[in-house]
Amino acid sequence: MGDQHEVSETGAGALAIPSLRWEEPPEGPVVVLLDQTRLPAEEVELVCTDVPALVAAIQSLAVRGAPLLGIAGAYGVALAAARGFDVEEAAVVLAQARPTAVNLGYGVRRAADAYRAAVAGGAEAPAAAALAEARAVHREDIDASARMAAHGRALLGELLPGGGYRILTHCNTGALVSGGEGTALAVALAAHRAGELRRLWVDETRPLLQGARLTAFEAARAGMAYTVLSDGAAGSLFAGGEVDAVLIGADRIAADGSVANKVGSYPLAVLARYHHIPFVVVAPTSTVDLATEQGADIEVEQRPGHEVTEFSLPSVHGAGALSATGVPVAPLGAQAYNPAFDVTPPELVTAIVTEAGVVSPVTREGLAGLCSTSRWSKSRSGNGMMAE
Amino acid sequence: MGDQHEVSETGAGALAIPSLRWEEPPEGPVVVLLDQTRLPAEEVELVCTDVPALVAAIQSLAVRGAPLLGIAGAYGVALAAARGFDVEEAAVVLAQARPTAVNLGYGVRRAADAYRAAVAGGAEAPAAAALAEARAVHREDIDASARMAAHGRALLGELLPGGGYRILTHCNTGALVSGGEGTALAVALAAHRAGELRRLWVDETRPLLQGARLTAFEAARAGMAYTVLSDGAAGSLFAGGEVDAVLIGADRIAADGSVANKVGSYPLAVLARYHHIPFVVVAPTSTVDLATEQGADIEVEQRPGHEVTEFSLPSVHGAGALSATGVPVAPLGAQAYNPAFDVTPPELVTAIVTEAGVVSPVTREGLAGLCSTSRWSKSRSGNGMMAE
Repeated sequence: MGDQHEVSETGAGALAIPSLRWEEPPEGPVVVLLDQTRLPAEEVELVCTDVPALVAAIQSLAVRGAPLLGIAGAYGVALAAARGFDVEEAAVVLAQARPTAVNLGYGVRRAADAYRAAVAGGAEAPAAAALAEARAVHREDIDASARMAAHGRALLGELLPGGGYRILTHCNTGALVSGGEGTALAVALAAHRAGELRRLWVDETRPLLQGARLTAFEAARAGMAYTVLSDGAAGSLFAGGEVDAVLIGADRIAADGSVANKVGSYPLAVLARYHHIPFVVVAPTSTVDLATEQGADIEVEQRPGHEVTEFSLPSVHGAGALSATGVPVAPLGAQAYNPAFDVTPPELVTAIVTEAGVVSPVTREGLAGLCSTSRWSKSRSGNGMMAE
Repeated sequence: MGDQHEVSETGAGALAIPSLRWEEPPEGPVVVLLDQTRLPAEEVELVCTDVPALVAAIQSLAVRGAPLLGIAGAYGVALAAARGFDVEEAAVVLAQARPTAVNLGYGVRRAADAYRAAVAGGAEAPAAAALAEARAVHREDIDASARMAAHGRALLGELLPGGGYRILTHCNTGALVSGGEGTALAVALAAHRAGELRRLWVDETRPLLQGARLTAFEAARAGMAYTVLSDGAAGSLFAGGEVDAVLIGADRIAADGSVANKVGSYPLAVLARYHHIPFVVVAPTSTVDLATEQGADIEVEQRPGHEVTEFSLPSVHGAGALSATGVPVAPLGAQAYNPAFDVTPPELVTAIVTEAGVVSPVTREGLAGLCSTSRWSKSRSGNGMMAE
C-alpha cells in the first residue's frame, strides 16, 4: 500500500488530483487509486495488484463517480490481462461491483472487447490491446472534461456578461469523479483560471457530505475562493442575491431532458427559477439515456436510512470505508427517507452542457441531435450501455 | 446532579417531556432541566441550585428554544430570590446569557418586576412573588401552546378536508422549546391525537440536527408515525406529492409578516409555493416584533463556521455541551457560510397561527390586529422586549 511511483502519462496536468492511474513498477502492473473515503482528513493511495482488490475499492467507495468508474473498470480488465488472470471472469466481477453504475460496465466492455478482438486476431500480446483501450477510455474522458469546460465557460460568458461569477454547486463533480477535471467543477475551474470566478458556493450535500469533503478539497487544491454551506442555507444566498448561476452534474439524463442528480439538486432548481438564476447541468453525452423517455421513468435508488440517522464518516472510525455503524444522531429505531438522487424536469434547466455542445432551451430534439453527433453514439448503439 | 424528584405542578401532563421544572426538595429550591445537548443518546437531567449553573446550562444549549428560555429566565430570578442571592445581579446575568434571545429577557423582567414590586410593597416574602410570576409565565406558555394547537388543527381541517395529513416540519418546535407542547409540533400532535396525522416528515435540520435529534425524539415519544430526512430530500417529497402541508415555528415575525426561522425554512416555502402546498407558521404573538417593519430589517445571526465544517455532536464526545472542536468534515481552513436563520416573505406564508387566532392571508393589518387583542399586548408596550 502507498507506493510512491511517478505519475503515468495519462495524468491531466501538474495541478490535477491523481484520482486513478496505471503504473508499471518492476513487480508488475498496478492500478493506483486515491482513497476517497479518507478525504479530506488524509490523502492515502490504494495500490491494486489484482481485480479483487480493485472490486473491493469500488464497493467501499474508495473510487467513485460515474466517469472514473468507467476508467477503473477498463484498467481492471487490463490489469487482469497483464497479470495473466482470467479476463472473462474479471470482466464479469468488475461489471457487477456496482451494478447500477452505467459507466463501470461501459469501461469494462470497451477493454474486454479490445482484448477479445486481439485474441481472435491472433495478436502476440492481447493484454496490450486491453491496456491501450483502457488508456483510450481515460484519454476520452479527459478530453470530454476539457470540452465541457470550454463549452460551459462560453455559456457563462453569454448568460452573465462581465465575469465575477458567484457559482453555487452541489455534490462532487471535479477531478475525483473523472480522468480529467470533471463536469460542473471543470467549468468553474476554467472560469477560475480565467479570473472570472468570484466565489464557489459549495453545498455540503447531505447525507454523505461529498460537497464539504470532496468538492471543498478540490476547490482548496485549485486555489479557488470557496465557501461551504449547509444545503438549507442555499436559500439565503439566493434571497440575498449572492448566486449568479447554479452548476451541477448529472447521474442520468432522460430523453426529454429530465436530469437525475444527487438529492438536493431539485430544490436548487426550484430556488433558481424563483430567483431567475440560470440552472446549468454539465455532463457528458454518455450520461444521456435516450432509452428513458422521461423523468418519471427514472428509477430513484433508495439508500440505507443509517446514512441519515447515524454519523458514520470514515474519519470518525479511522479505518477506511464508510461504516454501517456510526454515531446515532436520531433516536434508536428512527426511520429515514434517503433517496440517492432527485429528478429535475427540463423546464427548470436553463442549459445542458456536454462535450459535444450545449442544449438550451432543453428539448428532446436538441438533446437527441447532440447525442447523434457525439463520440459516444457509435458505442451507445452497439453495446446497449444506456439500457442497463 | 440527576436527583429524581417528583414532577412539579406545572407539568403539562403525563406524556409531556419534562424540559424544565421547579422543585423544592428539603435541601432548598432548584430548577431541573432536561439536558438537550445529550439527546437523543441520553436523557440526563441537570439540577441547577444557583444562577451561575442555570446560566451555564443556557449558554451550553442544555436548555434552548425561545419560549422555554423565557420560562428558564423567570425561574432563575425566582431561584436567586428564594436562595437569598442578589436578585438584581441575577437578573442582569440571566438576561445576558444569550443576548439575542428575546424571550429570555422577557421572562427575567417579568419575575424581577414582580420581586421589586413585592419589596417596594413591603411584602414579607418577596421571593414568593417572583416564583408566582415565574409560574404565571410558565402557565401562560402552556396555555398558548394549547390554543395554538387548537387554532392550527382547525386551520388544517379547513385547508385539507378529510384528514390523513402528511406534514413536513423543520427544526424543533415541540415540548423541548416550551413549557407546553410547543408551536408547530403542538399542532401536529393535536392532529395525531385526533387520528388525522398520517405522517410527520422531519427535516434533520443541518447544521445542528435539531430535527433528527430533538423533533424525532419528541415524535417517537408521542407515538407519531414519523420519518427523518436530509433537508435536501424534501424536494423529492414535494415532487412526489407526499407533502400536504408544511408547519414550522418562528424566531421572529416582522410587522409585515416576514418570518425569521431556522435556516432552511425559506427553501421549503419556495418549494411549497411551487407545488401549491400550504406553508403555515405557528408561533405565539410574543414572537411578532411590531418594531421591525419588514423582513429586510431583521438582522440574521451568523454562527461559527465549525458547526458546518466539523461534526461535533455531544454524543461523539460524551461529555455534554456542543464542542467547538469536532471531527472535521471539510478541509482544514475551509470557510463556511452559516446563518442561523432565514427570512420568508409574507407572500409565501399561507397563514400565521398564534394563540390569539389565525392570520390568513398574512397582512400587516391582520397581524397588528391579532397582537392588539393578545395577552402579550400590555407587556409588549411596557417593556420594549420586541425592540431588542
